[in-house]
Amino acid sequence: MHVPRGERLTAQDIARKVGVHPSTVSRALNPATRHRLSEEVAARILQAAAEAGYVRNDLAASLRTRRSETIGVVLPDITNPVFPPILEGIEAVLAAEGYVAMVANGGADEERQRLVVERLLARQVDGLILATASLRDTIVELCLAAQAPIVLVNRSEPDADHRVSSVVSDDMRGMKLAVDHLVSLGHRRIGHIAGPQNLSTGKGRLEGFTAAMKAHGLSAPAVDVVVAPAYARDAGREAARRLLERQPDLTAVVAANDLLAIGLYDELAARGLSCPDDLSVVGHNDMPFVDLMSPPLTTVRIRHREMGEQAAGLLLRKVRGEAEGGLDVVLKPDLVVRASAGQPRQPGTRP
Amino acid sequence: MHVPRGERLTAQDIARKVGVHPSTVSRALNPATRHRLSEEVAARILQAAAEAGYVRNDLAASLRTRRSETIGVVLPDITNPVFPPILEGIEAVLAAEGYVAMVANGGADEERQRLVVERLLARQVDGLILATASLRDTIVELCLAAQAPIVLVNRSEPDADHRVSSVVSDDMRGMKLAVDHLVSLGHRRIGHIAGPQNLSTGKGRLEGFTAAMKAHGLSAPAVDVVVAPAYARDAGREAARRLLERQPDLTAVVAANDLLAIGLYDELAARGLSCPDDLSVVGHNDMPFVDLMSPPLTTVRIRHREMGEQAAGLLLRKVRGEAEGGLDVVLKPDLVVRASAGQPRQPGTRP
Repeated sequence: MHVPRGERLTAQDIARKVGVHPSTVSRALNPATRHRLSEEVAARILQAAAEAGYVRNDLAASLRTRRSETIGVVLPDITNPVFPPILEGIEAVLAAEGYVAMVANGGADEERQRLVVERLLARQVDGLILATASLRDTIVELCLAAQAPIVLVNRSEPDADHRVSSVVSDDMRGMKLAVDHLVSLGHRRIGHIAGPQNLSTGKGRLEGFTAAMKAHGLSAPAVDVVVAPAYARDAGREAARRLLERQPDLTAVVAANDLLAIGLYDELAARGLSCPDDLSVVGHNDMPFVDLMSPPLTTVRIRHREMGEQAAGLLLRKVRGEAEGGLDVVLKPDLVVRASAGQPRQPGTRP
Repeated sequence: MHVPRGERLTAQDIARKVGVHPSTVSRALNPATRHRLSEEVAARILQAAAEAGYVRNDLAASLRTRRSETIGVVLPDITNPVFPPILEGIEAVLAAEGYVAMVANGGADEERQRLVVERLLARQVDGLILATASLRDTIVELCLAAQAPIVLVNRSEPDADHRVSSVVSDDMRGMKLAVDHLVSLGHRRIGHIAGPQNLSTGKGRLEGFTAAMKAHGLSAPAVDVVVAPAYARDAGREAARRLLERQPDLTAVVAANDLLAIGLYDELAARGLSCPDDLSVVGHNDMPFVDLMSPPLTTVRIRHREMGEQAAGLLLRKVRGEAEGGLDVVLKPDLVVRASAGQPRQPGTRP
């Protein structure tokens, strides 16, 4: 067994080898202070440290200080393009403080999510940012039981239960922007492809859609809403197929996220229907590259980068013991008008 | 200071509390053997373990066994959509073996890359998959010095230097497919937006482009090639601007990756030019959603998922001591013909 040595001993070893004072070695090994040394001296020390296997012994230091300056980030789906800009925001804040994010993909399987979180905790991350939290979430329980600081991003817990801080977009406002826009274009028969109802975004956007329709005196009958089982392109296409078969009179559809809207594009193309001439579409998120799609997607822009920045800031305050209790940061979204929503087709002109 | 307890002691504590044999506790705590227990027993043990803070003490076990069943993955740019499908492949193989991937964003800054890798090593990952390796890479040196098993994905080291295994796409073949397609459509004046020349893909694809042009008896004068400083949409647009100003007679351009091709789309739109009528475009990678762009992008499809699977498989063999020395896995790409490349415009018809 390899016994981890203490940091002091290692620094002295390296100092002797390079011919500098041990405090210079400490300074070189700490990324926050390294810039105070000349590049040449820092490089010699880092080289010697690497040869001495110093990096592995960092672990021993973290056992003593219990601070790894590493934050775990758990995503529900690494292929969803909404997360990279959120991660950019997280990393910008962490990097400024000398922290590193380790991102793990929880996936949809609860057993796997649990394993992923256990591994991150076992690696002694100082805290976790969870984008996976469903409305009843064993992962949150696991983190709370392990006394790990956590912040939820793009998800929140039910109101009754505010032990955990979260950073979310205002889904009521987002759906109101989408519905108001379609109504102003003349639409009355508007459907909704909802997200998974065990996720706070899926539930909140459905509520927002229903409330916005009601505010215009429009009914949103249950038959005008289909629930997609996942935020994914293929799930969106399948949901769109069900919705269009059931309700061919719809002239517009609001999708609970952009991947679902893209699935709807796929289904329209398969049916030889045109967007927006046959059906107007509004997405949600403004994920990267939807400006280039055909047609460019009109969508609700959530403030991805700022969500990440806020989440990282909240978590660092918790890690440092500067914040207690839960709070929600709710960011206001905007509507980005592009070309996927236009005036409704004339009644009876459906091809 | 909190002293980490040994696994045996913890397991005994939990066994006493739950009223089961310690070996049952061990079985429940190991994700690989958990399924042998009834769900109810496993749940009670995991609950008690979480309350006892077991997950944090995993660290002590990893110090003894020096195996964390955790793999670090370092990306150069978390916003590049080419990586999620590679990560999916990596995770599929790791998950089947009970491993978890921790993904870190190295970024373009070398100092930050070094910090990220140091942190991953300090967290005792069993090995690293590096997508960041530039042709002269201090990160690779750092890992080799720390005796950490590594595999490069989507990048390779120069041929002279084969200490490290890699999984790459055949860039010579990829560029030949792109150029052959354009030549078969009638193009003769074909330009290239090259990737960064300190990356093996940027260098290899430029070589591939030049060789493919030569094979058709076409010169590829240096003026028909611009090098983008990064694989990014804005870098692609800026490179496209320079190329189109210098060489307005080009009828087609091969971009070294899809983000650069999208930047070229942006520049064409800004100039009121149409693709493919005014300029044919071929990308490289077939990243997600380029099938939906306007026009749908003709591109070289690399086998993302399989690259990830191969890299994870190679790394696990290294971690387990089943493989020594370096080897390259080179996957053959395909051409995906969509709508961004057509016949060349007639001479003198440039708008």
